[in-house]
Amino acid sequence: MSTAAVEKMGPTITLDNMNPCVKKMEYAVRGPLVIRATEIEKEIQRGVSKPFKDVIKANIGDAHAMGQAPVVFLRQVLGLVVNPDGLNDPLIPTDAKERAQVILDGCKGQSAGSYSDSVGIEIIRRHVAEYIQNRDGGVPSNWEDIVLCAGASEGIRAVMKLLFNPTGSSKKPGIMIPIPQYPLYSATVAEFNMAQMGYFLDEENNWALDLNEIQKTLDQGIADGVEPRAIVVINPGNPTGNVLSKQNLEDVIRFAHKNKLFLFADEVYQDNVYAEGSEFHSFKKMVHEMGEPYSKMELASFMSCSKGYMGECGIRGGYAELCNLDPEVNAMLNKSISAKLCPTVVGQACMDVVVNPPVKGEPSYDSFMAQKTGTLQSLAERAKLVADTFNSIDGFTCQTVQGAMYAFPRLHLPEKAIAKAKEVGQAPDVFYAFQLLENTGICIIPGSGFGQRPGTYHFRTTILPQKPALISMLDRLKGFHVKFMEEYS
Amino acid sequence: MSTAAVEKMGPTITLDNMNPCVKKMEYAVRGPLVIRATEIEKEIQRGVSKPFKDVIKANIGDAHAMGQAPVVFLRQVLGLVVNPDGLNDPLIPTDAKERAQVILDGCKGQSAGSYSDSVGIEIIRRHVAEYIQNRDGGVPSNWEDIVLCAGASEGIRAVMKLLFNPTGSSKKPGIMIPIPQYPLYSATVAEFNMAQMGYFLDEENNWALDLNEIQKTLDQGIADGVEPRAIVVINPGNPTGNVLSKQNLEDVIRFAHKNKLFLFADEVYQDNVYAEGSEFHSFKKMVHEMGEPYSKMELASFMSCSKGYMGECGIRGGYAELCNLDPEVNAMLNKSISAKLCPTVVGQACMDVVVNPPVKGEPSYDSFMAQKTGTLQSLAERAKLVADTFNSIDGFTCQTVQGAMYAFPRLHLPEKAIAKAKEVGQAPDVFYAFQLLENTGICIIPGSGFGQRPGTYHFRTTILPQKPALISMLDRLKGFHVKFMEEYS
Repeated sequence: MSTAAVEKMGPTITLDNMNPCVKKMEYAVRGPLVIRATEIEKEIQRGVSKPFKDVIKANIGDAHAMGQAPVVFLRQVLGLVVNPDGLNDPLIPTDAKERAQVILDGCKGQSAGSYSDSVGIEIIRRHVAEYIQNRDGGVPSNWEDIVLCAGASEGIRAVMKLLFNPTGSSKKPGIMIPIPQYPLYSATVAEFNMAQMGYFLDEENNWALDLNEIQKTLDQGIADGVEPRAIVVINPGNPTGNVLSKQNLEDVIRFAHKNKLFLFADEVYQDNVYAEGSEFHSFKKMVHEMGEPYSKMELASFMSCSKGYMGECGIRGGYAELCNLDPEVNAMLNKSISAKLCPTVVGQACMDVVVNPPVKGEPSYDSFMAQKTGTLQSLAERAKLVADTFNSIDGFTCQTVQGAMYAFPRLHLPEKAIAKAKEVGQAPDVFYAFQLLENTGICIIPGSGFGQRPGTYHFRTTILPQKPALISMLDRLKGFHVKFMEEYS
Repeated sequence: MSTAAVEKMGPTITLDNMNPCVKKMEYAVRGPLVIRATEIEKEIQRGVSKPFKDVIKANIGDAHAMGQAPVVFLRQVLGLVVNPDGLNDPLIPTDAKERAQVILDGCKGQSAGSYSDSVGIEIIRRHVAEYIQNRDGGVPSNWEDIVLCAGASEGIRAVMKLLFNPTGSSKKPGIMIPIPQYPLYSATVAEFNMAQMGYFLDEENNWALDLNEIQKTLDQGIADGVEPRAIVVINPGNPTGNVLSKQNLEDVIRFAHKNKLFLFADEVYQDNVYAEGSEFHSFKKMVHEMGEPYSKMELASFMSCSKGYMGECGIRGGYAELCNLDPEVNAMLNKSISAKLCPTVVGQACMDVVVNPPVKGEPSYDSFMAQKTGTLQSLAERAKLVADTFNSIDGFTCQTVQGAMYAFPRLHLPEKAIAKAKEVGQAPDVFYAFQLLENTGICIIPGSGFGQRPGTYHFRTTILPQKPALISMLDRLKGFHVKFMEEYS
């Protein structure tokens, strides 16, 4: 057979001729460590002996996977939306039935099985706008600015997509993202062939924004021939667990305005604020308080059902509030979303419950509030427990977990461990993470998956295991860590 | 204020500096006609007088919106997955409970609120593979080749994304798509800056594939400097309602192999086959029957919960079977999907019920089968009714609706109507469609949204209105058409 004929029989898509930007993407939260953790789980199932009894996946903010119970009221509403037979069930409270009926009335043919508008069901968009307006002490929110999406990620990608040029452009569009960052951003920037302009957060200052760093990053990007287009701020922070001050927000808003940057406000952890003195301030409210010209800036704020006290990751619900978009650009965005038909109606319904929960006097109010505050209080305890524990272990320093669902402790690795990592061809934090996984079954994500200052080492762990499991995990981790430090000191 | 300062206060994203490929995208199924139809609905609500009482949206394959009842068994399972309280409800049949329990056992923490693997829940992927294997008379299907996705669209886009080059390439990658086509393809090809290589279907031969046309299109593309990478076949056809013969499939498989094209098999209407003598043949089975080298070709086949007899569009469930992908490319695909976290778990559960319905002997079997066959039988009647009606009206010819959910009748427009359309700056079929909408409230999609041979005019209408509504719609349409033809003859 000729060489040409053999070649013809190979695959049509190969590493050499496939989309090079997809090859470049990294998504550490579901990367090699997680793949290995899943393999170990299967090994344990097959009876392979391990020095631990189970794998603890502290790699991802997945509350229900870690034993958090779904919010009862929320699931009652979703159950009715999916199977309206239950509307006649006397055991289901009337407020859940009313919520479900309103959602069904918003569905064509009164069925969650019909397509919704691509931007979402109108009544739910209206509820979202009311929620935002209440959250922000009356600052107006326009329901037509609300786009429902299957989780915040989808909304973020849809808006960011507007900024790149698949036909090639003289200058690469640059997206400023915090370092450390949530890998959705680095992955999307890579996929869209944009330039990642990472600005370091100030670890010693509990991961606050540092305007000098942000300016330096901008200047460097411009010097490198990049065209800065947008800045991403994650508040409360992922993976850093920080909550930004009003001053910090104001600074970055002025900076974005001055430099004509589109502002991405990733505010999916807005319900997750734990530390005394910390408070969530929305970008929307801030620009309003600052008045013109800031209140006229373009701003996209994202929210999700996956986090907060509900943790409904698998349901895929979220929204974007898109303020001050050029109307023609907004029309293009809507058109591009429409090719994806619509976000899951059940996810939209889930978002509806989150923005329109039981109110005082309704039958489910007390039990709903008890569940919500119970979960948030327990998360606050766990946030403190995790940071305190790390700070009590030699070789760790950990900033206060003010919010979100993660601690991002700094690992002070001995020189010998760093040398050993080099020897085996791994980044030092990746080496540590794999050792931890193989020895204890604990799966965390090394700092290099999020970005960190060169020469520093961190990892991200969720605070989501239930308290006894969390204590046992931290014990296991400490035991490993002490031995590791001994071995390499 | 200086000009620079004024300019600074404008939006950062404008039509001039936004993604040019998003601007180019068109998605007619949710385009200007549908936007106008929705406006008219609101006008009617506001009391504006119209020559009709309601808007009929025959623009999109949205069965529940048109009054089709959800499959009871399916919704029982989904209801339990969302709210497992019902597992104790004696009124819900045991087979629904068993299905739901298996799905919940596949969810981390036994909750649909936890993230699944990005490629979907393992047990559901296994059920999909079993379904395919049964469908194809035992041709093996490997569960690891199955990727669950939020509707087929998402899967199609994920695979097609592998083929473009956002960094620019010397030759544009070309995707061969049928004309007429489903606008997801033209929209995605435009968004990904690829070259659309449209091959005309043979209308007179009930929209069959025409190998000469396909070859001509390939030759022309190569002459134009395009690099052909893939061919899309939609079977049963959208918008054309045709079902391809085995010979047709075999021809296109040989063609794809010979020209090293990746094969996209859009088979979402595989349950929707109505015409006597028509039968669905999967590409997967065909390549297996043809043996090597064809059985070793890369092939992506897509399925959805949105069509068939279930019509669960809003739930967003679907799968892709990806055969013979290069393992390294497959790893890249999985990585790129993982940045989107996971498809909706409820959508995955919906897919599970579709591939794993009640079997003989189970309590829900009889009622499930009655509902399924009732729906499909009624669709078959409506398919015949629509085509027969168009063929009975002067100025229309309509091919047999062999399958899917659409008729794509040809409109023989008088010269005067064509001249009038030109005068008002519309394509003749768009002019007709707007006139129809404004005069009757019927929303159909003009052929130019799907593509058609130059100088021919068509539109796509769904066959989904329930029978009395369909008869009344066809009456209204006929009344308008007769007047229109008189006016312009």
